[in-house]
Amino acid sequence: MATTITHSRDEWADLAAHVLDRVRAHKPLVQNITNFVAMDISANVLLAVGAAPAMVHAEDESAAFCALSNALVINIGTLSEPFLAGAKAAAISAHTLGKPWVLDPVGVGATEYRNQAVKMLLRHRPSIIRGNASEIISVAKLAGFSHNTHTGPRGVDSTNTTDEAAQAAHWLARNNLCTIIATGAVDLITDGHNTLTLAHGSELMTRVTAIGCALSAFVGACSSVHENAYEASIAALIIYTIAGDLAAAQATRPGSFRTAFIDALDAISASDIKSILRL
Amino acid sequence: MATTITHSRDEWADLAAHVLDRVRAHKPLVQNITNFVAMDISANVLLAVGAAPAMVHAEDESAAFCALSNALVINIGTLSEPFLAGAKAAAISAHTLGKPWVLDPVGVGATEYRNQAVKMLLRHRPSIIRGNASEIISVAKLAGFSHNTHTGPRGVDSTNTTDEAAQAAHWLARNNLCTIIATGAVDLITDGHNTLTLAHGSELMTRVTAIGCALSAFVGACSSVHENAYEASIAALIIYTIAGDLAAAQATRPGSFRTAFIDALDAISASDIKSILRL
Amino acid sequence: MATTITHSRDEWADLAAHVLDRVRAHKPLVQNITNFVAMDISANVLLAVGAAPAMVHAEDESAAFCALSNALVINIGTLSEPFLAGAKAAAISAHTLGKPWVLDPVGVGATEYRNQAVKMLLRHRPSIIRGNASEIISVAKLAGFSHNTHTGPRGVDSTNTTDEAAQAAHWLARNNLCTIIATGAVDLITDGHNTLTLAHGSELMTRVTAIGCALSAFVGACSSVHENAYEASIAALIIYTIAGDLAAAQATRPGSFRTAFIDALDAISASDIKSILRL
Repeated sequence: MATTITHSRDEWADLAAHVLDRVRAHKPLVQNITNFVAMDISANVLLAVGAAPAMVHAEDESAAFCALSNALVINIGTLSEPFLAGAKAAAISAHTLGKPWVLDPVGVGATEYRNQAVKMLLRHRPSIIRGNASEIISVAKLAGFSHNTHTGPRGVDSTNTTDEAAQAAHWLARNNLCTIIATGAVDLITDGHNTLTLAHGSELMTRVTAIGCALSAFVGACSSVHENAYEASIAALIIYTIAGDLAAAQATRPGSFRTAFIDALDAISASDIKSILRL
Repeated sequence: MATTITHSRDEWADLAAHVLDRVRAHKPLVQNITNFVAMDISANVLLAVGAAPAMVHAEDESAAFCALSNALVINIGTLSEPFLAGAKAAAISAHTLGKPWVLDPVGVGATEYRNQAVKMLLRHRPSIIRGNASEIISVAKLAGFSHNTHTGPRGVDSTNTTDEAAQAAHWLARNNLCTIIATGAVDLITDGHNTLTLAHGSELMTRVTAIGCALSAFVGACSSVHENAYEASIAALIIYTIAGDLAAAQATRPGSFRTAFIDALDAISASDIKSILRL
Repeated sequence: MATTITHSRDEWADLAAHVLDRVRAHKPLVQNITNFVAMDISANVLLAVGAAPAMVHAEDESAAFCALSNALVINIGTLSEPFLAGAKAAAISAHTLGKPWVLDPVGVGATEYRNQAVKMLLRHRPSIIRGNASEIISVAKLAGFSHNTHTGPRGVDSTNTTDEAAQAAHWLARNNLCTIIATGAVDLITDGHNTLTLAHGSELMTRVTAIGCALSAFVGACSSVHENAYEASIAALIIYTIAGDLAAAQATRPGSFRTAFIDALDAISASDIKSILRL
């Protein structure tokens, strides 16, 4: 059944600050089954916000480890058969145990292999799907959505705006009973009934590899400390993109931006969020 | 048939600036089948210069993805059977489709396993081979070259100077109809008929892991926007090593040099190249 | 037979400076079979101190490469079957050839899969085992130690203090004839007969991913240039944690700390060690 969630700007700022406090206080253990490019920065993002990362993907232990974790994040960037077997076992464990799990469908639509992997993972019911606009449209199409003007991704990059993905995102959220996060210059978060868009962050966030993948890891951390996945996702996006604003005020090129962004995730405070948030 | 390519210093500077402009304008999609140590910095180097990296290596999709890419880079650093199967499929695809592909034969000569892998990959005709002096000598020997005084690499490090590799590099370029880049304190680029040496860059580039591997990725980007592989390779080396000079003017230790180098690849301009290039 | 090793504070400082000099002079080739998160920083730590890293883990070549290396480091962070096969072959090679090898049992105790992997590796006789307090207690239990109050790790994080691990560390060192390093706010090094504790370093070292894993790599480098594993381990810990002190004087947040730490490993001198060391 649909729930209507409306908060004022100040209430969203308070919620984001509350979720940030809880991550720092509870240090959720986030299991990441992620690509090789994203591992370093995902772990460092999680440590910077106070969470506890673990990269555990072997089929022999991924389900058992999921039982110890507070959230699971599956990112298909550098996909392979052993990886997919471990991801499947962990996704089943997370769904069975009622733990939040986040799907990051990197490059879906680029190859049939990725499409089949995503179809399989969708059957194990992610709580949240986080992708760029083209990826979200591709996932919706794989799930049966037929009304769109999608022209396909370019490698792992989006060729669509978030606005072009809005209809697909709403449909996918309703159809899969999950929260969808479509990121880009504008970020869109929807649970199929409620939708919010945000326009914080810096273009430099697209110039450092895997900052988007690491966002999915951070969404996992936030969803483990706040039960409503839609609100947790919005809190995560607010914190992450305002940290991007703070970092862009310190660094104007991608090498130094990466360092400044990790520092900003460590430094960001409730008062930063309250003074900077625009809705 | 041999082509004689001679440019003045100013013409080489103009060519390098032109290739840099084209990379930034066309944002070539570069498929990297590379080692686990090099993935992060290779992706960040490509993003810093404006290209689009994708790390896709599974045999199930590597050839299909190559059809979408503008260039392929294969680096055998952390070699394994599944990696090699994906690399082979992608190399066949690149060669068949006439796409430029770069081979980085990390550690060839250190083990028989690496030698066999390189022999197999040579059959699929790389456009460009980029290695240190000992690696280039080792590849030439595997391809039949018999006149050298090579004493073998030490792990993945060179024990030879670029000068000692010159004869092997020329032979290998002629014999395999490809461009050879032998890097070191002096960098040598040859297509078997034309040869250029460059001596830019900083010793600090050897103190940060995988800066050489990331150069191979950048060579892939440049060769996808400029058809002549010899000229594209020289342009890549000019841009990359002058960025090294710029970074070394900002940072004197390896941690901060890595950050400064990524920033320099973002910042480097035609006028930097024109004012700094020495031939 | 037990050897009693007692040095004054100044003698330990001299020994650490001597080991640092030897690493810089001899540039030992350190083979790392390590997890995907730790590869980048392990390689950069080794390069910063002047050693030569190589990440070679395939079963087809790991033993052959070990014969070329000066030390072997096995870290089970992102464990999988192919990795374990390569690690086993290399460990047998190192033990047979009498080369120092360091085991970093990441996350042991968290899953039965990790426990079985560690049991297998222990049979091939590591020279040094480096873990956090909970990991050292878990390894000791797997080896038969029965007197402890261990409550199990949390993911890959310790829930115990080094002091709580002291008894297990001593037992494990005596029983396995190796050196044990239990790291935390206080670091404990023991060969079963001699024990030293150190309290240098910064809390920020736990806020950057894999700085502990990279320490294991550095211990490998030190143990290859100084025969007594207990002394080499203490020298490594002194150098590494004082570099942490130096970095923490430059940077107060995790992103910039990582950069400052790599720079500090490059910059650290005998006089830094002599002036800063506290025992």
